[in-house]
This record gives sequence, structure tokens and C-alpha cells, in this order.
Amino acid sequence: MEGGESKEPLELAGVTGGSPVRSVSFTLTRGTQGNDHILDLTRELQAGIQETGIRTGQAVAMVVGSTAALTATEFEPGLVEEDLAATLERIAPRDGRYLHEETWNDDNGHSHVRASLVGPSLALPVVEGRVPLGTWQQIVLMDFDTRPRTREIVVNVMGVG
Amino acid sequence: MEGGESKEPLELAGVTGGSPVRSVSFTLTRGTQGNDHILDLTRELQAGIQETGIRTGQAVAMVVGSTAALTATEFEPGLVEEDLAATLERIAPRDGRYLHEETWNDDNGHSHVRASLVGPSLALPVVEGRVPLGTWQQIVLMDFDTRPRTREIVVNVMGVG
Amino acid sequence: MEGGESKEPLELAGVTGGSPVRSVSFTLTRGTQGNDHILDLTRELQAGIQETGIRTGQAVAMVVGSTAALTATEFEPGLVEEDLAATLERIAPRDGRYLHEETWNDDNGHSHVRASLVGPSLALPVVEGRVPLGTWQQIVLMDFDTRPRTREIVVNVMGVG
Repeated sequence: MEGGESKEPLELAGVTGGSPVRSVSFTLTRGTQGNDHILDLTRELQAGIQETGIRTGQAVAMVVGSTAALTATEFEPGLVEEDLAATLERIAPRDGRYLHEETWNDDNGHSHVRASLVGPSLALPVVEGRVPLGTWQQIVLMDFDTRPRTREIVVNVMGVG
Repeated sequence: MEGGESKEPLELAGVTGGSPVRSVSFTLTRGTQGNDHILDLTRELQAGIQETGIRTGQAVAMVVGSTAALTATEFEPGLVEEDLAATLERIAPRDGRYLHEETWNDDNGHSHVRASLVGPSLALPVVEGRVPLGTWQQIVLMDFDTRPRTREIVVNVMGVG
Repeated sequence: MEGGESKEPLELAGVTGGSPVRSVSFTLTRGTQGNDHILDLTRELQAGIQETGIRTGQAVAMVVGSTAALTATEFEPGLVEEDLAATLERIAPRDGRYLHEETWNDDNGHSHVRASLVGPSLALPVVEGRVPLGTWQQIVLMDFDTRPRTREIVVNVMGVG
């Protein structure tokens, strides 16, 4: 069952005595169409990290609001315009029964449930000044609300320059 | 498909030369009823962060144990007493067949599966001394076990004061 | 509905004035069989953290690639060889219809969808030099791709020694 474990000693990077750890925050703002709109945040996130000058550390990104979520996927039309939404429609159907909607006379019970399952935030390592994503791996915002929204994604980057 | 990207240069906050980054840990302890009991941790988490004096940085929270999870939602009765649990009951039914239960003569196979899907931890940015959550966005503990439990949520806050 | 909140003041640990925060990165490399292969990363992750000498802080781990994910579970055969995969098969069936597969003449649409739902990364607190996991709580890599893969898990540890 187990894959083989790494045999070589770990190569530790970033143990630089001289430069102190810094902590830098910024906010990305994006307009969405709601309704499972998925947006690629990778370029802006990597650019923001580069702007901080931090080379080895951690980034955390969180979307403000409880009907949107952050995750990673290959950003190509099949996945982001159909497959991810189709799966979430099976898990939490738009036309399902939600007590949230009956209580608040609202229509976004499925939006809340989907957002809680995917999750509001992502923690990411920063190595050589960027998140070491794969070529076909992008950081995405998923907006599950039932109307267009303006979303704020708050980012903090911490580490050594 | 894409929403418009931010046009203005990023406003970086927290690049303060003087104050060094600090790292502070604490533990929240909460009693739960199990059985999909969802508890709001927001007030305690924000108070703990405030107590550290850290203003710009990152917080990470992790629940100890593999039948509970952390996420965010709007903490209102419809979602937290019915809709989230109803969705997870569709995904991993309580009365489904689980090899975990047959192997260990246990009844919480669904609890483990639900916890792994939602996830054990959350990373969160800290800005101006708090997690910049939306008004209707709360940090919650979900306890999927089949009996009351006492849960420990270990938190670390790192950043500049 | 609410469990009782903690009554005692928080005991803050790690507010050491003397030792500066450090940031250290390393990479774990693991061979997998794909097809929902779940591997236990706990021992290597804890050993890597110990090697950094960091005692109070945060670790983040991210798998490179968009058909694998990280989460926590009890690492026992029932859950990791059957129950988790069976649940994900209900959510995103291997033989379902995926536009990703039709577009790219590929067979791993379900792999991408599963990976995005579980998530690519985990943030974890470090207390007394280790992630304070429960006895039956392990950090796992889930490889959803349809063939054996070599996976890199990039880790950053930050905190005070």
C-alpha cells in the first residue's frame, strides 16, 4: 500500500541568518458573475508575492464572504465551466431544499453549503519567490452566490527576502 | 469567463522595519455533542489573536482528532442545524457501509470520511489585529463523531505587532 | 446548540523575546500508484519539522499537481483502502461524463474534480517541535490520477526555535 519513503536527507532551504522574517498583506479585488463562476487568481497572486520581495515562506489567501471559496485546479474550460460545477450540483443541488432559504427567504442555500465544503482559504508555500505550482495547477476563486459579486481576497505573505 | 483583474498597484501593508515577527500559540477547548454539532469559534479566535498583540500576519487553527473538521460558514440555524449536515448525509450517509466500521466494530466511518473531506485545519490572514471575515462569515468547528467529545483546537498566530 | 466556551484565560506559548522567527523549506518526494492511492506523510513531515529546529510556529504543505490532494485521516486500511475512495466515487464517479476528458481526450476528469474538493494544501500549527496531531490522526497524500506518479510535496516551516 505504501509508496517508498524518501531516502535522502532533506535539503533545507531558507535558513538564512541575516535577513529577518517579514510579514506583508495585500488585497486582490475581483468582479465575478456568481453562479459557480471560477476565476484564475494565479498571475495576480504570484505578482503580489514577487512584489513583497519575500523568497522563502508562506502565503495565505482568504476570500471574504461565506458563499465563495478558494481551491486549486487546472484552469481549462472543461473543468472550470462545467465539470466542477456539475459535481457540486450533485452534492448540493441548486433546487434542493435548504432551511437557510426558508428561514431567510433567500435562494443561496446551496451556495453556502458548497462554499463550506470547498473552504474559504488556502495556505501555500513560497519558494524562490513564488508558489511552486505545477504547470497545469492554478489557484482559483469559486463564486457560488446567485448573483454577480465583487470579491475581496485578503493575502498575507510571510518569510525571508 | 474571466472577471476583470485589479488594475491598481497593490497596497502592501505590514512592511514595518522596526518590529520583529513573533510566533504565539494557544489552545481553545470546547465541549461538543458530536453528531454534526457545529460550533462558532469566531469570538474566541479573534480574542486570542487580539491577546497576542499581532496586527499583520497569519493564524492557523487545527482540531486534534480525525472525526472533526474546521471550516467557515454563516452561523445561522438553517445552515448549521440542518443544511450542512443534510448535504454531508448525502455524501457519506451515517447508515452507509464502511469497512472502517466492520474492521474496528465501530459506528463512525461516516464521521471520518466527512472530516477528511472538510479538512482538519484553516489558515487565515490577520489584518489590523483580526481575521478580516465578512459580517455573515464565521469560523466553525464541525464534530462528526457519534458521541459528545471534548475538542482541542490548536492555534498559532505569527506576524508583526 | 452551542458548546460551552473556554472560561480560563488563554495560555500563550512562544512569546520568546530572544530567538528570531526563521523560515525553512524542504520537499518530500513520494512514488504513488495513482487511482486513489493514499499515503501516510506523518513520519516524514514530523521528522522534517524536527530537523528545522523550529519549536513554535506554522507548517504548510502543498502537493504539486492538480490531480492529488492533502488531508488528514486515521491511517487504517478500512478508511484508506476503501471508505474514502468509495465516497469520492459517489461524488465524482470515475466513469462519469467530464468535459475535461472530451476536450483533452483524457481519462482523469474525476481525478481533477476530487483533488479540487479535497484541496492541494494543509496549514498546520507547530507546537513543541511537532504538529500536535491526535494518536489516530495522520497527514495523508491522496493521488487521484489514473496512473502511477512521482509526487513532490513542498513544505515550509516558520517559527521560533
